[in-house]
This record gives sequence, C-alpha cells and structure tokens, in this order.
Amino acid sequence: MTPDHNIDILISEVGPRDGLQSVKTTLPTELKMQWLTALADSGLREIETGSFVSPKLLPQMADAAQLVAHLRQRPDVFVTALVPNLKGAQAAFDAGAQKITLPVSVSEPHSLSNIRKTHVQVFEEVRAVIALRNEHFPHVEVEAGLSTVFGCTIQGEVPEDDVIAMALRMAELGVDEVGLADTVGYGNPAQVRRLFTRLRHEIGVKAGSAHFHNTRGQGLANVLAALDVGVTTFDASLGGLGGCPYAPGASGNIVTEDLVYLLESMGLRTGVDIDKLVAAREWLKRGLPGEPLYGFIPDAGVGKNFHYAGSAR
Amino acid sequence: MTPDHNIDILISEVGPRDGLQSVKTTLPTELKMQWLTALADSGLREIETGSFVSPKLLPQMADAAQLVAHLRQRPDVFVTALVPNLKGAQAAFDAGAQKITLPVSVSEPHSLSNIRKTHVQVFEEVRAVIALRNEHFPHVEVEAGLSTVFGCTIQGEVPEDDVIAMALRMAELGVDEVGLADTVGYGNPAQVRRLFTRLRHEIGVKAGSAHFHNTRGQGLANVLAALDVGVTTFDASLGGLGGCPYAPGASGNIVTEDLVYLLESMGLRTGVDIDKLVAAREWLKRGLPGEPLYGFIPDAGVGKNFHYAGSAR
Repeated sequence: MTPDHNIDILISEVGPRDGLQSVKTTLPTELKMQWLTALADSGLREIETGSFVSPKLLPQMADAAQLVAHLRQRPDVFVTALVPNLKGAQAAFDAGAQKITLPVSVSEPHSLSNIRKTHVQVFEEVRAVIALRNEHFPHVEVEAGLSTVFGCTIQGEVPEDDVIAMALRMAELGVDEVGLADTVGYGNPAQVRRLFTRLRHEIGVKAGSAHFHNTRGQGLANVLAALDVGVTTFDASLGGLGGCPYAPGASGNIVTEDLVYLLESMGLRTGVDIDKLVAAREWLKRGLPGEPLYGFIPDAGVGKNFHYAGSAR
Repeated sequence: MTPDHNIDILISEVGPRDGLQSVKTTLPTELKMQWLTALADSGLREIETGSFVSPKLLPQMADAAQLVAHLRQRPDVFVTALVPNLKGAQAAFDAGAQKITLPVSVSEPHSLSNIRKTHVQVFEEVRAVIALRNEHFPHVEVEAGLSTVFGCTIQGEVPEDDVIAMALRMAELGVDEVGLADTVGYGNPAQVRRLFTRLRHEIGVKAGSAHFHNTRGQGLANVLAALDVGVTTFDASLGGLGGCPYAPGASGNIVTEDLVYLLESMGLRTGVDIDKLVAAREWLKRGLPGEPLYGFIPDAGVGKNFHYAGSAR
C-alpha cells in the first residue's frame, strides 16, 4: 500500500482469510462485516478480507466479493485478498480488491499436494494474472506470497537458494512484491535474518512482508529478527485465529494483539489501539462460540509502564 | 559456572525454585528429587534447586537443603539456590550450593512491599553475605538478581539509570555477577538491548544472566534481543511452571522446551536433549496433577527440518 507516514510498521490483518479458512464453522457474512469494521476501527490499515477460491473447496470464503465491497467503503483501509488462480484474480479485481496475494509454494511437493500444480504450471498462472492486471486493473497490486520458505512438512528442509530463485522468478514475472511465509511454524530468527537479507539484496524494493505462524512459539522472535533486517510489513491474525490442527494450544498466525504490544513497546508506531483491537474479538466470540482464541495481551493486559510509540510519556 | 566449551548458551533451569514457589501444592521431596535427576539427565548444566527462605513463608521450599545435597551427587550439574538473606545464605552454603542468587529489587517500593527492606537495608544484607562467603565459602559464587528491571507493578516505570546504579552498587559490594530479571513480563526487546549493553559496559564480565517471564508473550523475542548484545546465560522453567496468577494462560518463566528449540534451531548449542526434557514433565504431571504446563514444543514437536546445533545435517 502507499506509505503512511504516521506509522512505522504496517500490520496486515489476515484473520478474516487465514484465520477463518482454518476454522470449520462459517462465520455469517453479517458478523464478518461487523468484525471487519471493528478491525478497521482499531486502526489496522491493511486487511486481507478473504480468499477468492472455489466455494466448493472453502465454503467459509464464499462471500469474499461482498466483504471486499463492504470494506472498500473505508478509505482508511487497504483491502487485500488471497487469490489462487486466474479465475480468482478476475473475481477479486472485479470486486474491488486493492491488492491480491498469490500463494506460491517454494517446495514443489507441497505445491503438488496442495494445489496440484507443478512450478511450471504455477508460473503460467502468475503470468496470466499479471497480464490481466496490467491490461485491465493497472492500479491493483500483486504480491507473490512464497510459502514453505522456512521448511516444509513434506520436503523437510527447503534450500535457501530455492527460495531466492523463486523470488527472482516472481519478480521477473512482474509481481510488485514478494513476501515470505513460514506456513508451518518452522522458522528461526537466524534463518529469517538470512532470507530477508538475501531477498532485499536480490529484489530490492520488491522485498515484501513477513508471514509467520506461532506453531512453535517462535513467532515474535522471528518478527524481531525480520525487523532487524528491515522488514516493515507483518501479517498477523486477531486472536491467532485458526490454531494448528496438529498442535493443540498453538495459535495459527502470530497474534495481532501481542504483535502490536511488541512493536509499540519498542517505539514502533502501528496506528493500532490495543483496547479496540481486543474489543474486536467480541465478533469472533459471538459468531464462533467455542473456537479457541490465543494471545497473551488480552488476558494479561498491557504493562503499567506501557505507552504507545510516539506518545508523551 | 565454569565455562563449558561444549555449549554456546547456558540454560539455568529455575523451575524447581521459581516454578514451584509459585504453585500452591507442595511437590513431595521424593518426586522433586526424581524431577531434578530427569532435568539433569536431559543435559541441563545449571539448576536452581530451591529457595532458602523461611518454611513459614514458603512451605513448598522447606526441603531446599536436601535437594541441594541430592543434586550435588551430579558432577555434571552446577547447583544453585535463591537466598533472600544472611540466614538463608548460611544454610545454602552449608548445604553445598555452588552458587547463590540474591534477589534485589531495583524498585524500592517493590522491595518494601516484597521483603520489607529499604535499599540501604538490602545493601547491608548483601555486604554480610559477601563477608560470610569470602571468609568461609570462597568457592561459592554469588549473583545479584536484579528484579523489576523492566518495570514494576507498583512503581510502573523503572528508570534505566536506577538499574545501572544498582548493578554498580552490587559489583562494588563484591558479588560475582549481576543478572537482570523481568519479574512481571514488562520487558521489550529494545529495552533489553539497551540495558544489557549498558550493564556490560559498566560492569564488564560481571554482567550476568537474563531472567524473563512470558506473561505478555514477549519472552523469546526478549531472549533474541539479549543474545544480540552478548548475553550467554538464560533462566527458564520446564513447562513455564508457575503461571501468572493474574493472567490465565500465561506461563511464568519462559518455557525451557521452547527456549532450547529457539537456540538449537539458530545454531547455538545448549547441550540439552529436547525429548528428554519433555519427558521430565512427567514428574510434574504426577506430583502436581491439574497444574497447567505451558510450551509449544511439547505439543507441536520439532519441525521436520530441525537438527541440533553442531550436528551433521
């Protein structure tokens, strides 16, 4: 999105997409809209509203177009969506998404298992999406979200050279940004520093966001590592929604509430109000009763010495 | 303790002290001994066995001398204990502790509320402990564990100058090491870097360990920050035992299991075997049924690409 000079770090809230797509229950559209409004009201400046995927695959995401249209009423929020293929891109563009993220597995076995596509087939799809964007929707940003960057449940180790080669390929194909995702919570801070440093070295300003999962409790340490090497956009999910099916007690994405606390405590402005953010959980509790929500700050509260970055002490 | 060239980072397991003293139920001495043995078997090289405090105050700690004697049978473990005053120091020395930690609040209101002593009274106690050590137990190490370093529930903000002044005072009084403790989980990585950098600048090799709580989920990010500025000893507690009474779901100390994973993943040798560490939880489950244990690694397991630092890939 366009740089906002009132914030130092952009938090991209992915709960409405990454969180909800991992939850079996479908949150009713009306509640989703109220949740999105509450998220925007908390000061979040970028929200991934949904995934433009076949409703047969993910019925929870069937209302993505409606949600994009709803959130586009907020000029203060940059509205993004996940898009797996050309058909989804067309739908997202038509709905008014301001940015789309194309997930691309660095691990080919993961790609085959997940979307049944080889790397060559994925490149063709990305090429087609970029052509469509360039011809008809030139103002929409396209990000490639590289997944399995820090390791893969099928392949195990993912060579760092493969990650960089894929990032270069995506940049050549014309995407605007390449983000790195730790899909399964395998990443460690040393790896994070190495990969984002190389990414910036190789593709410069096209180096994009960090997307971490907290499956092994390493999420915020990985955020700190990424901050150290210049990453300024982080994906996170309210309440760590989505969890991890094979790790009871482990949140899905890193928890937005805890991330805001980390950043603001360190003197980095996010624009987000923690009280309003915590209040936005209400819509999840109402619409997804019984679904576990994670995070330390909602329970512990901020420290007595906490103050927002940039505020008077 | 004496540097061990087979490890890069020393983990000081404080569960038997910080964890158990926060739990109401008393773990029977026999189970504690078996737990201590299991902890040592996992490869932990330093264990804080208990607190030499009045059994009226903390009946859970009444067997501290027995536990020190038990663990001293292990030449591969450095046996430490917490000591609040001269009387406790005498008892810990007599029992055979190889190192004692004196807790010293930087916040005077906290000191008054916690141990009913002014700073001047605390200095007198430290002076007396050092005199006793120097005369009769010259081989025992004495550490001052500064608490409320990153903020205080009573005082709120704790000036960094106060922390450094207290560290200098402790060094002058003759302690061997000064550690910094985030008693209530208020710390952030920027603060951690500033304070440990200043600490090393002011007292050199006497700069000691980092003791973090995970009340607000920032524990491992703070560890990474401390690593960056040269800290090589970290306190942690198996299962994050002890919790936080006012924050349901928040562990007490940072979780040893998750810390070992962080460090080993980053290529830093701890000497600890994660499977054996997780197995050591068994004694807590047996002796403290219903007491929540925390940590991600025990549930999620290590990543498929994980390997111990220094091992062949």
